[in-house]
Amino acid sequence: MSGDVKAGYMRPLDLRHGRVELTHGSGGRAMVQLIRELFARHLDNAHLAQGNDGAVLPPAGGRLVTATDAHVVSPLFFPGGDIGRLAVNGTVNDVAVMGATPLYLTAAFILEEGFPLADLDRIAASMAEAARAAGVAVVAGDTKVVERGKGDGVFIATTGVGVLPDGLRLSGDAARPGDALLLSGPIGEHGMAILSQREGLGFDSPVASDTAALNGLTAAMLASAAELRLMRDPTRGGLAATLNEIAQASGVGILIDEAAIPVRPEVAAGCELLGLDPLNLACEGRLIAVCAAADAPRLLAAMRAHPLGAQAAVIGRVVEDARRFVQMRTRLGGVRMVDWLAGEALPRIC
Amino acid sequence: MSGDVKAGYMRPLDLRHGRVELTHGSGGRAMVQLIRELFARHLDNAHLAQGNDGAVLPPAGGRLVTATDAHVVSPLFFPGGDIGRLAVNGTVNDVAVMGATPLYLTAAFILEEGFPLADLDRIAASMAEAARAAGVAVVAGDTKVVERGKGDGVFIATTGVGVLPDGLRLSGDAARPGDALLLSGPIGEHGMAILSQREGLGFDSPVASDTAALNGLTAAMLASAAELRLMRDPTRGGLAATLNEIAQASGVGILIDEAAIPVRPEVAAGCELLGLDPLNLACEGRLIAVCAAADAPRLLAAMRAHPLGAQAAVIGRVVEDARRFVQMRTRLGGVRMVDWLAGEALPRIC
Repeated sequence: MSGDVKAGYMRPLDLRHGRVELTHGSGGRAMVQLIRELFARHLDNAHLAQGNDGAVLPPAGGRLVTATDAHVVSPLFFPGGDIGRLAVNGTVNDVAVMGATPLYLTAAFILEEGFPLADLDRIAASMAEAARAAGVAVVAGDTKVVERGKGDGVFIATTGVGVLPDGLRLSGDAARPGDALLLSGPIGEHGMAILSQREGLGFDSPVASDTAALNGLTAAMLASAAELRLMRDPTRGGLAATLNEIAQASGVGILIDEAAIPVRPEVAAGCELLGLDPLNLACEGRLIAVCAAADAPRLLAAMRAHPLGAQAAVIGRVVEDARRFVQMRTRLGGVRMVDWLAGEALPRIC
Repeated sequence: MSGDVKAGYMRPLDLRHGRVELTHGSGGRAMVQLIRELFARHLDNAHLAQGNDGAVLPPAGGRLVTATDAHVVSPLFFPGGDIGRLAVNGTVNDVAVMGATPLYLTAAFILEEGFPLADLDRIAASMAEAARAAGVAVVAGDTKVVERGKGDGVFIATTGVGVLPDGLRLSGDAARPGDALLLSGPIGEHGMAILSQREGLGFDSPVASDTAALNGLTAAMLASAAELRLMRDPTRGGLAATLNEIAQASGVGILIDEAAIPVRPEVAAGCELLGLDPLNLACEGRLIAVCAAADAPRLLAAMRAHPLGAQAAVIGRVVEDARRFVQMRTRLGGVRMVDWLAGEALPRIC
């Protein structure tokens, strides 16, 4: 065997013109090289650098919270973000809305043969930036490659681990009649950013995804000492799906006020054009919170004091309703049902 | 809106003839139904039943270990297992070989539109059975659906969380010259099971995958009080890749003895037919261990006393070698290099 095939002597990856090959997923030297020269270069941290099958992490010192998400968004790059940023923020948010402090992420990549390494490099860089911004470390990863036509560029499954403050209990079934419902900012921006890219809508100023890590905002909300029942991030299915989930789980009704729900004009315009309801569009950097009514002003103030909650609003309240309906008082003064989006799918929004 | 589209009144999933649809991944009622009637039915446990974005878990009381793996094996069903069983065992093993006790798994599914629900049901049942056998709970999950032709049936990314006993430190860089190298059983069965399915080899008795959860075996090994340096499961890339990784990480050479390495005759015959080396074939239920030479007999006895280690053997030793070569004394008495598999990929073996 000649020295030039030993790991140290391989030609470096061509990050400009190279492409993902099946050997990059086969457990051999090419995979080690991809991990070292691409993923580890961006995502480097002491845990990942252990180079073992798993990462050893210090004791978390409390109850753990874990959440997982596969990300299959199409297109991979969109105004305001990309699949890498989304994969980090989405899982950070799932942990954060449980009331936990996200600490660690793992990332498993499913790459399609032929995918440009330059794009993968951009995605890894974006994940690293998002992880730094959120204060989490990507501590373990995995890379698989599927043949051309058996995937779609890149899918990323991220899992988050966080630690929950003692005594805190937030849960989707904790909403009670009388509680206030708060929303942290305008809805539908992520969904519209994706759809407008897909449909090739030529907005003058394209709608950017709201993708953001919410753990700073949730920490500020917890610090407000408001009596929080639950928090949720309205992603797939939008606000409508999230509110229906809460109504189902808590055995309550929810009444929201259309005039109170912030929607950016570009999103509203795009929805009119596409025949969509902003209530069904995914957010990736917003949350809703349910709290005791008396604590709503205090919670709202805490949210507004945070950059990601500057446009927070009380948008409705929890009501008694054995049918578990979500309803909305419209701008015209009527009341209409807010249902889950039924047939029409908005696939691969995240 | 009429009551019959409310969650409680939907027609049940047709688990015999139904297929995955894009709406099953869109965050609406169809997704809730798929999760409830298929995944939760099999994987039910108190954590998963919380029904929140993430699962709340009790304090682990020690250092954590986490590991993640995307599974893209093709075919999805093979002698001895399927992608579901593999996804559970693979991640349990990555946590177990770190010396940790695996406690929790998360599972993220990427489904292709049109995939038969009956197959998905079988896979979920198989995951549940494997999780029960390994003593772990699947505590959180996610389901995404991609359009026909943008995936390949089902991919599953699993992440494991475990807890590490105080004071234990196993790491790939811990092997020292003089240490003994042990293998828990015959190699190459998983790889051969997949390849023979793919190639349509008509073995009289087909080789079954060795997929198994190794946490019982690793616990027995740790209990033996042998001075363990590291454990590893030789999956993708086989024993050859794993040994080269250890040699690289530890800055040592490794010398193995061909005659000592158990290989089932069917695997050896298949390798001859396909022109493959069993050292490059994936195992999914075997591990190697490096320990202080003096402790090898004690460790070997502990391994052999466990059903998954009945054929365990000392297969070689760690040697001083600045070139970090892995070499093998052959049955004929010569010594040859054991390299990573270079060009030829064995894609989608796990």
